[in-house]
This record gives sequence, C-alpha cells and structure tokens, in this order.
Amino acid sequence: MKIGHETIPRTAISTSNADTIVVRGKDLSAELIGHTTFTDYFLILLDGKPVSDVRRRVLDATLVAIAEHGLVPSVQASRMTYAAAPEALQGAVAAGLLGCGSVILGASQAAGELFAEIAGEVDGGKSLESAVEDVVSARRARREPIPGYGHPLHKARDPRVEALFGVAQEAGAELRYVEIAEAVERAIPGIVGKELKLNVSAAIPAVLLGAGFPLKALRGVPILARTAGLIAHLLEESEQPCGFALSYQAAQRVEYTGEVPPGFSQEGGES
Amino acid sequence: MKIGHETIPRTAISTSNADTIVVRGKDLSAELIGHTTFTDYFLILLDGKPVSDVRRRVLDATLVAIAEHGLVPSVQASRMTYAAAPEALQGAVAAGLLGCGSVILGASQAAGELFAEIAGEVDGGKSLESAVEDVVSARRARREPIPGYGHPLHKARDPRVEALFGVAQEAGAELRYVEIAEAVERAIPGIVGKELKLNVSAAIPAVLLGAGFPLKALRGVPILARTAGLIAHLLEESEQPCGFALSYQAAQRVEYTGEVPPGFSQEGGES
Amino acid sequence: MKIGHETIPRTAISTSNADTIVVRGKDLSAELIGHTTFTDYFLILLDGKPVSDVRRRVLDATLVAIAEHGLVPSVQASRMTYAAAPEALQGAVAAGLLGCGSVILGASQAAGELFAEIAGEVDGGKSLESAVEDVVSARRARREPIPGYGHPLHKARDPRVEALFGVAQEAGAELRYVEIAEAVERAIPGIVGKELKLNVSAAIPAVLLGAGFPLKALRGVPILARTAGLIAHLLEESEQPCGFALSYQAAQRVEYTGEVPPGFSQEGGES
Amino acid sequence: MKIGHETIPRTAISTSNADTIVVRGKDLSAELIGHTTFTDYFLILLDGKPVSDVRRRVLDATLVAIAEHGLVPSVQASRMTYAAAPEALQGAVAAGLLGCGSVILGASQAAGELFAEIAGEVDGGKSLESAVEDVVSARRARREPIPGYGHPLHKARDPRVEALFGVAQEAGAELRYVEIAEAVERAIPGIVGKELKLNVSAAIPAVLLGAGFPLKALRGVPILARTAGLIAHLLEESEQPCGFALSYQAAQRVEYTGEVPPGFSQEGGES
Repeated sequence: MKIGHETIPRTAISTSNADTIVVRGKDLSAELIGHTTFTDYFLILLDGKPVSDVRRRVLDATLVAIAEHGLVPSVQASRMTYAAAPEALQGAVAAGLLGCGSVILGASQAAGELFAEIAGEVDGGKSLESAVEDVVSARRARREPIPGYGHPLHKARDPRVEALFGVAQEAGAELRYVEIAEAVERAIPGIVGKELKLNVSAAIPAVLLGAGFPLKALRGVPILARTAGLIAHLLEESEQPCGFALSYQAAQRVEYTGEVPPGFSQEGGES
Repeated sequence: MKIGHETIPRTAISTSNADTIVVRGKDLSAELIGHTTFTDYFLILLDGKPVSDVRRRVLDATLVAIAEHGLVPSVQASRMTYAAAPEALQGAVAAGLLGCGSVILGASQAAGELFAEIAGEVDGGKSLESAVEDVVSARRARREPIPGYGHPLHKARDPRVEALFGVAQEAGAELRYVEIAEAVERAIPGIVGKELKLNVSAAIPAVLLGAGFPLKALRGVPILARTAGLIAHLLEESEQPCGFALSYQAAQRVEYTGEVPPGFSQEGGES
Repeated sequence: MKIGHETIPRTAISTSNADTIVVRGKDLSAELIGHTTFTDYFLILLDGKPVSDVRRRVLDATLVAIAEHGLVPSVQASRMTYAAAPEALQGAVAAGLLGCGSVILGASQAAGELFAEIAGEVDGGKSLESAVEDVVSARRARREPIPGYGHPLHKARDPRVEALFGVAQEAGAELRYVEIAEAVERAIPGIVGKELKLNVSAAIPAVLLGAGFPLKALRGVPILARTAGLIAHLLEESEQPCGFALSYQAAQRVEYTGEVPPGFSQEGGES
Repeated sequence: MKIGHETIPRTAISTSNADTIVVRGKDLSAELIGHTTFTDYFLILLDGKPVSDVRRRVLDATLVAIAEHGLVPSVQASRMTYAAAPEALQGAVAAGLLGCGSVILGASQAAGELFAEIAGEVDGGKSLESAVEDVVSARRARREPIPGYGHPLHKARDPRVEALFGVAQEAGAELRYVEIAEAVERAIPGIVGKELKLNVSAAIPAVLLGAGFPLKALRGVPILARTAGLIAHLLEESEQPCGFALSYQAAQRVEYTGEVPPGFSQEGGES
C-alpha cells in the first residue's frame, strides 16, 4: 500500500558490502571500533559531525544523570514484565522504555523546545526577562505545564542540576540555555504562584543545547540512558527477583469501588 | 496476588532521599556525573565493580561494533512504527528492540554460554580441541544451532571480528575466550560439513568475557547498542521519512496464495 | 516516589477471593463464562452497562471491519519481529500494536472527537451544515488533518464504509453521527479543495457513537481488532515465514545518500 | 540483507484491490462485516475454516475466562506505563501484553502441548494412566514445571475450570483433552508430592483442543483476551488514575541492600 508520496527509501546513516560496513562515511571496522567511545559514536550516528570534547563530556554527564533513579514506575513495570516473561529480556526492556513518555522522561524534549522558543524571542530583540515572561505566561494561559520544573522527591533543586551545570561550565559549553533555564526558574513563582525548582529534565536540554546537541534528538537521551539502567535492573531481577513482590505490595492497598454479587466477601481476598 | 514466596522487594542498585541519589554506593551528583563516561557507568550499574581501563575499552568497542548495520529488519520495523505513530518515539524504539531476539541479536548471549561451557570442560581437564569437539558435536546432535557463526552478508569473516580481537589484545584483556571462539571456527567444517566464519555475535562475548564482563549481562550489550542506532534512525525518519516507502517496497513482490471470491482481479491491486 | 496526589489505588473493574472472581459486579465463573460472547464481555469490561443487541452488533461489525487488511506496515513490522525473536509471540504482537498510532489506526479516535465536536455545535443551536463548515474550516486553518477521510488504496469510498453504515441501520443504532460523517464528506471539497472520501476510520466512530459506545474508548477498537489479525499473521509466520523476505524486498531499492570511504564500492553490496 | 533462503513474501490471509478487501477467500465488506461475530472472525483469520457453533461457544468461553483478573502484574505495568505516557494508548497496551510470557499467561500454550503429547502416547497404544504417568514423570525428572496446575490465589480448583468444562460439555465439544487434564491432576500428588489443582491455563487448552482449535494458536487466546481487559483498565486509568499510586505503594516496602555514602540517611527517604 502506498502511504504518502515517497516510494524509494533513502538513508544517510549506513551502507555495506560483503567486506566493509560504512557508518556516516567511515569504515566501521577500520576507523570506529577501538577508536571511539560509545558516547562519541552516538553523536556520530545522530548527525555525523566530528567528535568534540565538549559534546562528549556534556553528553556523558547527561546520560549518567538520567540513567537510574531506583525503582521508579518504568523500572517496576520492566521488572514485573521480566518476572512474567523471562524468556524475552528485550520485551522487559521495551516495557520499561514505553514509560518514557510525555509525563515523565519526555520532559527533556519539551523543556528543550521551551528554551529554544525563548532563545528565538531573544534573537528577535526581546530582553531575556521579557522573553521568559511572555513565553511562560502564554503557556500558563493555555493551561500547559512548564516542563522540567518541580520534582516529587527533590523539592529543593534536584541535586543533579548543579552537577550538570558544573560540567557544562568546566567543559566550556555555551551557557546560554543554562541562563534561560535559570531565568525561567526565577520567573515561575510570579507566574505560577509557587516555587518549582529546576529538575534534571530541564537541566539536560539546558546543557546539551549549549553543546550543540540536536534539539530534535533530545528525547533520545533519556531513552538511551534508561536502557542502561533497565538492563542493570533486569540482570538483578534474574538473580534476586522482586518483580512479583513489587506487584504484591502494590496490590495490598487497592480499594475495589465496584459492586459485588450477593454473599461475596473480600475478607481474606485481594483484588 | 502473591506469586512466588517473596513479598519484600529488595534492590542493591539505587536509593535516594530528598538531597542525594545513591547509585551502587556512590553519590550520583557528587561522584559520578562529570566523573565517569556512560560506558563506565553502564559497568557500574551492572555490578558496582570499580572501573577498569580494560573493561571500558573492550565494552566501548563492542557497543560501537553492534550499534548499527543499516536498514536491518529491526530498524525497518522501528521506522515503520514511527511513521505510523510519530507521537511516541519510545514506542518506535521499543518496536525495534523487540526484534533483538534469539535469531538475530540474542546470539551474543548464546555464544557466550557456548564459550563458557567449553571453558568449563577445559577447566575440568580436557584439551581445548577435545572440549570444543565434544560441546559442538553435542549441540549438533541435538540439532541446535552454533550461535555466532555464519553471516548472510559477510561470508568471509565478518570485518568487525578482527577489529574486536585487535582491541582486546591492545587493551590487555584475557584472550582465553578469543582462542575458544577461533577453535570453534576451526572445528565447524568437520562437524557441520561447511565453513561458518565467526561473526560479530561470537566476537562480542569472546572479548567481553575476557574483560570480566558478566556472562548473564551479555544480551544487554546489543540491546543498549541498538538503542543508540535506533534513535539515530528515528531522528532521520522524522526529517527524511522512509518507513512507509520501505513498507511499500516490501509489499511489491508479495504473492497471495489464498482463494479469492468470484470476479475478483488482482490486476492493479496489491495485498 | 509519590507522583501526583493519590496514594491509594482504586478500581471498579474486578476483585476476587479464593473462590470467586468478580467482574463489574458479576461472578465471572457463574454468570459470565458461557453466558456472554467476547464482544459483549468487552463492552461489560469497558463500562459495566447491560448488554444490548444494538451495541453488540455494531461493535462486532467494526471489529471485523478493522482487524485485517493484509501486509500493512504494522503487520510487516510484527512479522519481521517474530522472525527475529520467535521465542516471544507477545513481543511480536506488541511490535505490531505499537504501529496503531496517530497517523494510521488512531484516526478512529480522532474522527470520533471531530464528530462529537460537531454534534456539540449542533446541540448549541447551529445547523448541521454550519457546524460542519465551522469545525472543519477551523481545523484546516490550524493546518490539522481531517481524520478518517481519504485512503491510499480505496480512492472511491472505502468499501467497508457502506457495510458498516448498513449494519448500523439494520441494528437500529442512532444514525446521527453517520449523518455528521457524510456531511463532513460533502463539505471537504469546498474547504480542502479536493475530494476525500470517508474511510473505515471515520465510519467506525460514526456507527459506534450512535450505538452508545464510549467516546474515550474508540481507540481501543482498532487495537483489539488488530490483535486478532496480528495473531493470525504470526501463526502463519510460524508455519510459512515471510518476515525476512519482506525485509529483503524492502531493502532492494534503498538508496544510500551519505558518504563512503575511498575505494568503497556498493556494487554487489546492500545497505 | 538476505536472511534465510526465501526472498518472496507469501500470505494466504488477505489481499485487496481498490474496490474489494479479501480475507480468507471472502469479500470482507459483502460477506463478513455484519455477518460474523468477532469471535468467529478470529477463527476465520486463524485458519479460514467454516464457522461452527461448537468452536465459537468454546472460544468465547475461554476468551471471557482469561480476559480479566484485576490488578495482576501485567495490568499494573500497563497502568503505570499509561500514567507516564498517556499520549500513546498503544504503548500501554503493548507493555501489558509483554507480560504475557512463559511464567504467567503463556502456560495455556505449554499445557496444550503437554496434553497433545499425552494424547500421542495414548494413540500409540498406552492407557491414559500410563501415558500421563510417563509424560508427567519425564517432565518432573527434567525438573520442568507442569504447566496449568496450581494457582497463587485459587488453592482449590480455579473456579473458571468447572465453568469452562461445563461449556465444553454443553456445546458438544470432544472431551478427550478434558479427561487428559483431569488425569494429570489426579496423577500430580503421586509424582510431585503435593496437590496442584487445575487452573484456567490448563482448562483453556483442554476445552479448545477438543473444539478443534489449532494447537499452535493457543498462546494467542490469552493475548487477545487480555487486550480487551487492558483497554478497559486504560479507559479507567484515563478517568480515575491509579498507575502512580500502585507504584507508590509498591515502593513503600522496598529494602535497599547496597552500600551508601558516608552520612547518607534513608530516614524520610525512599528508594
């Protein structure tokens, strides 16, 4: 079935013949394996641009920052899935990644777009403060959330934020988006009516955009990072299972709010 | 519902309070972000052991080797999924990872288990040649495949194999499993009746086991690596789509082998 | 981690004790198994409302209409996934469902919301024609697509549309949303500048909303239906594989648009 | 890339032209929509055989039996995923289905294969008792589980078992596999050393095989059924969320067993 106009698939990432695998113009076996770190290679895969120390250091820092935060919902879902289907590690990883959506880990992308929009207003002539005020107020008026601010556990600033800003500075990245991110943090109380501190999902785009990372690829950063964390959790699950115990605990406080047939007693039962 | 005996979930990977996130005993913000590469961090997540130059170099090489090989089936599946559901990047990555199974990318794990079994026989007193002969013949007798040998495109040795063996040697990894892998390659013609050369899925465990990488985590290596490749393909798909074009081409040669109602003509049609 | 305000999980769908499983207030074993069809049960699960002949007939018709349409992209992705990971049927089904997104099968939900918006305008006092004109023009002005109109293969009206409208009429469903759907079809040439005929994704909500099916559950209909189709394709794949052949064909016409190293020749190669 | 020998994709399920969609030899719009229930259509999709009242009644009963059992692990995983990524209903359904694996819902397939093996021994001349004894003892000797027996909640016979056996009898299905299933139940105490009563995952293949359902498609039954249950849970989740509350409860009793940095206190913290 022809969907859309295009019938010829094109790609600029990789080609190969029987002897050589080419990735972004380079011979994978001769030029990349052993000559590049995985972090650099991710950058090469994304846009083929030459490796830079700034980009690698900042990207490494963000991947380390977001890979793991204990038994968060997506990790619980992944471990429950592995407990039920241990024949398919890939399925349990996939189940965990499916929770990297708009509410939780997708906020990095959304925050990056917010900062880019503010940067555009500044480029158009506004002061930073006015640009922040206008863009954040407009979001608020549309009842849209301000992505990357506030955290259920880290009420003061998420501790990963300082660490990431420190790396960006040391590595010599452009700090423009860090300044935008902090200006948004300062403006939030006046616009939203309460303090919401920078969390890791705002700090990631703030430092990555200043290191030349592609805006549209931001959402890939938490996804790649969490894959590492999920694999570690699933290795632990295979040796010291807790997937079903998590599910057991989750069900202990469930309240059933529907009807029951005559004579049915939940005493000793469970939903 | 209580499934299994355990009701208390336990984990040794991460804990946190409002100020500090702990991963494998270290303060994430103070000790890890900015101080460790993503590759090192993956190793820390997996087993908490101290970072070593050998482990990092070998792991980096394997992740780079397996991350990308063009529009292979799992990448096609992922790009088709993104074309149909662009609101959910995580779903398209998940679809691609679901193809990292026993037939294709899971072979790294299976080959590692084969090499470990041979190493065990050698530890028990057999010569390398006898151990290889016995273990490979037994698999053959049970009609099981020899994972990690033969490749649909790279009929001579997969070019990534030499590159990985070279990195292992340079980095100072133990070469025991490389020797086992090559002994299996030499034994295959006599046992299987045809040459099947080492492919990347055998080379990966051969070098990683010699660098102290945990056997049970081997399957995680292609999964993590491919996630990077998939994200790059999906970034390209968002800018220069080919998912539907791939599907269109795939359907051009489909033969429908079932019945049709009276008067139905496939002229101009398509399945 | 406490995300959101709620800490007590509540559900009204099912509870159980050691002897009895309760679903929507009924004893599953005594009152439902053997007494209800799967289609009725899906309705009971969704909202617990009593079964009606109209709802069942219309829902059956829509599930049959959308379950299968040959080797469409999501089926190709699913069969490729199964070929690579045959140990996990559930993973291949999941990969196929991940392609039920906003561009392809999610259009049923979006079209239902369009019709409900138009119905709301009519309830507010507009004529059907004005309501259609206003709502469709506003979407067009926002450059949003008109979901459920036009089809890559069925340029005249999708043949499933008449069949579904016929079932709705025979079953005695309310036809209000069918009329809205047809009014939209008539208005499109004037607003969009070309004919786009009703396709199955508009016909499904048109008949289901008239049968009292919940608006928010519309997206579940193609998902449930396609699951049946995917299982049939994967049973066929296990007996007569074509997943890798589809991928082979898809790759035949791929054009590599990136650079290559000196001396690399694509002759005889493939991406 | 050419994987395997086949390059031409073939299918016998569906084809189409601009006017007609053919499924299993029939015109979808003219002969199937409005003329067949979804349950019948699933059977037609699977093997194209004519509809029979026995097959439909037994299949309906099994789909109803297995679709829903409250907040089991896969439903928890699915609701957590939806809470984190509400933009992608299909992703949350996929996450739930990924838990339909070998340990939990895949047991229907495994039990069916057990019964078919016993039936084969009986066809070869053994008595039912000897065949059961031999096959079950051999599994036990290989330390393999006996799939479909025992249940974490329903210690006496799972209440769905009688209901399914009653439907099979009333519908006039062959009861051979029901007899085999009960003979296995009687033999288990002598072989395993404790009572393990028939659960729904053994009853499903026992009745379906007697109704002519294809052995290799058994695993599709819980997958299709659970899709309906998952959609209902996700509709409820969109209106009355509990995904994050489940995760919160699951984390309350987590014990962190790793090391912590000097000065770190878990008081008031959480993993």
